Amino acid sequence: MNYIEVTYLLTSKKHIEPEKKAEELAISLSIGGWGDLPENKRKKLEKYKAKVTDVLPYKEGKKEKILMKIGFPVILFEHSVASLLSIIYGKLSFTEEIKIIDIDFHPSFLDHFQGPRYGIKGIRELLGIHHEPLLMTVIKPSVGLNTDEFAEEFFKHAVGEADLVKDDEIFFDDALAPFEKRIEACVKKAEEAEKITGRKTLYIPHLKGKVNQLIEKAKRGVEAGAKGFLVNVIPYGFDILQRLSEEVDAFFVAHPSFSGIIFKSEHIGIRSPILFGKLMRLMGADIVIYPSPYKKNIIGHTDAMEIAENLRKDWENINPSFPALIGNITALNIHKAFKDFGNQTIFVASGEIYNHPDGAKDGVEALRDALDCTLTGVTLEECAAASPSLEKALKVYKEHE
Amino acid sequence: MNYIEVTYLLTSKKHIEPEKKAEELAISLSIGGWGDLPENKRKKLEKYKAKVTDVLPYKEGKKEKILMKIGFPVILFEHSVASLLSIIYGKLSFTEEIKIIDIDFHPSFLDHFQGPRYGIKGIRELLGIHHEPLLMTVIKPSVGLNTDEFAEEFFKHAVGEADLVKDDEIFFDDALAPFEKRIEACVKKAEEAEKITGRKTLYIPHLKGKVNQLIEKAKRGVEAGAKGFLVNVIPYGFDILQRLSEEVDAFFVAHPSFSGIIFKSEHIGIRSPILFGKLMRLMGADIVIYPSPYKKNIIGHTDAMEIAENLRKDWENINPSFPALIGNITALNIHKAFKDFGNQTIFVASGEIYNHPDGAKDGVEALRDALDCTLTGVTLEECAAASPSLEKALKVYKEHE
Repeated sequence: MNYIEVTYLLTSKKHIEPEKKAEELAISLSIGGWGDLPENKRKKLEKYKAKVTDVLPYKEGKKEKILMKIGFPVILFEHSVASLLSIIYGKLSFTEEIKIIDIDFHPSFLDHFQGPRYGIKGIRELLGIHHEPLLMTVIKPSVGLNTDEFAEEFFKHAVGEADLVKDDEIFFDDALAPFEKRIEACVKKAEEAEKITGRKTLYIPHLKGKVNQLIEKAKRGVEAGAKGFLVNVIPYGFDILQRLSEEVDAFFVAHPSFSGIIFKSEHIGIRSPILFGKLMRLMGADIVIYPSPYKKNIIGHTDAMEIAENLRKDWENINPSFPALIGNITALNIHKAFKDFGNQTIFVASGEIYNHPDGAKDGVEALRDALDCTLTGVTLEECAAASPSLEKALKVYKEHE
Repeated sequence: MNYIEVTYLLTSKKHIEPEKKAEELAISLSIGGWGDLPENKRKKLEKYKAKVTDVLPYKEGKKEKILMKIGFPVILFEHSVASLLSIIYGKLSFTEEIKIIDIDFHPSFLDHFQGPRYGIKGIRELLGIHHEPLLMTVIKPSVGLNTDEFAEEFFKHAVGEADLVKDDEIFFDDALAPFEKRIEACVKKAEEAEKITGRKTLYIPHLKGKVNQLIEKAKRGVEAGAKGFLVNVIPYGFDILQRLSEEVDAFFVAHPSFSGIIFKSEHIGIRSPILFGKLMRLMGADIVIYPSPYKKNIIGHTDAMEIAENLRKDWENINPSFPALIGNITALNIHKAFKDFGNQTIFVASGEIYNHPDGAKDGVEALRDALDCTLTGVTLEECAAASPSLEKALKVYKEHE
């Protein structure tokens, strides 16, 4: 039989019998309970019953921990992450102190997922950049600008040589710069900028609205010239991203909005390498934004690396997704970020570029110059001597350090 | 100007300046940042900027806490909980140790929400029960039964005199008992049971599938005879419930699947009285299921009461929703639950009814008899003398105590 194997870590303050507990959970999460069915009818349910495959109890201080693996028959699930999480974590989320450590998907389950439509390769083709890491920036503020002002702001990022420029994920009131007009205006500005820089820049609007209308809205966005969209995956739920990716010929950028409640706790939720590295990719995110290890240690270095590995690695029929690191990505430390994460990465600069005394264009330019130096092996100091915007940027970031 | 006021509790291990921190968050969450806009253009943004209205720092052991209130201009939001949470908690979820303590909605925001279509009053009218609390039960297992077997199982609950009988929320593979056929079969069985009991029983199927097809699916369910549906709100996202409630003439039952990660932590997430009591109601849940205070103390007594109060209280144009308590609701303790939560409540018995030695029908019957006694002021013991199913049930539950 085909199983999805979930590794859980259960924490308990009082003693429980590990094997018994694991077996209880396996029944409760799969068939729900034997009900009042007579023995002869229970046999029919066996094929739906989850099976305990491993139980490892240990102690950590005063707490008892149980690492357990439970195999869920693939037939229990629809081919969606919403159904997956409803079963493997829906009620556990409140009944136990338990965290999902890993999920091992059976190929027969993966087979029903399309995965990222563009993936790393497809996005590189759109941009015509085949090896080096990409730079993504964020328009701040996104709110309160009319279409022309918005496009002007976008233009600064494009001539500063950002590869991808996205809306802020908190941008909802776009009455002054409506979706399709804004896309058209930015696409035009991208063409203008390309004549100056020789580089393409893609504008990524925030896809928001009523969830039952998002597919149609994205299609209108594509008509207007957008190649990709930003989605606040968790607020809008663990299903719509997959449907968008299946139905719309565009790439999708998964924002980590609201994700902290899922990965941050030591005792509950889902480990970040699984949430970002496996689930987002499975749902079809071409680009997965997540907190870099360079700020506040929200996600540690090891987990941040594991996310990137999970997103890129060979995984049946599912295209690799771009890891996109956000948080303290500056001209000063991009060389380190590049050394850690390599070429198949997107570096996302948000508020950082606006710390530049000469504004967004110089902020982006400084970051681009710093990355170019890193790629060619020139030191930041040498590089700054030839780039006034980088020189000024380094001063600012050194003061912030 | 019109504001939504959010009360946050921030926890910090190191000292931070309370007013400065609150102001930083207010800017970061509303306009995102001033960008590189010159002073004269910043003025235009003022109307989008969130305002700090209160800051109260205090110490708790070694930790510094800051209770802060931030007012968000209503214009920042779309009329959806997805947009609300994206702004007020999206990035905070991972950048800070911060919990939402309360949300105070401005009437001009509420005005755009339809709220529960049926609410307490509408559901009572469907059932013809105008005062007493309602009993809801769960079919376990839901999986692995064909349509006839499923309807037979439903019938046991109906003749046992449950008011509402729902699918298990982990029920996804319904190939053997397909959605519309299952609804038709259960509706027919409900009519049969009514001839015996003189009571109506409503069957509540689990609404699952592709999120972009759920509205159409629910409409087909209504055609087949369903009056209401169970939705795993959080896995399917903070928008679809509102759209279902707006578009489909049925009542909706919000399941707490996956909710633990949002309310359980002391330091992050959203307090349960806000998540269940305000947000679910705002999205249009007619019935909100949440963990009772009678099991494992998942939600404490005070919070469980506050949820119920928030769901029922007068709240502008928004209909009251039914609080529905799940977890250790048995014939043995329903008198206590009734004393605590009163008439405007739904008591949900799940696995509990299947602990009855004579099966589901007797399990439901025992619960119904216990509730009837409670309502008429007869002691459980007296009542048990006249109800063999209750007598047996009490023995079982007392052993489990």
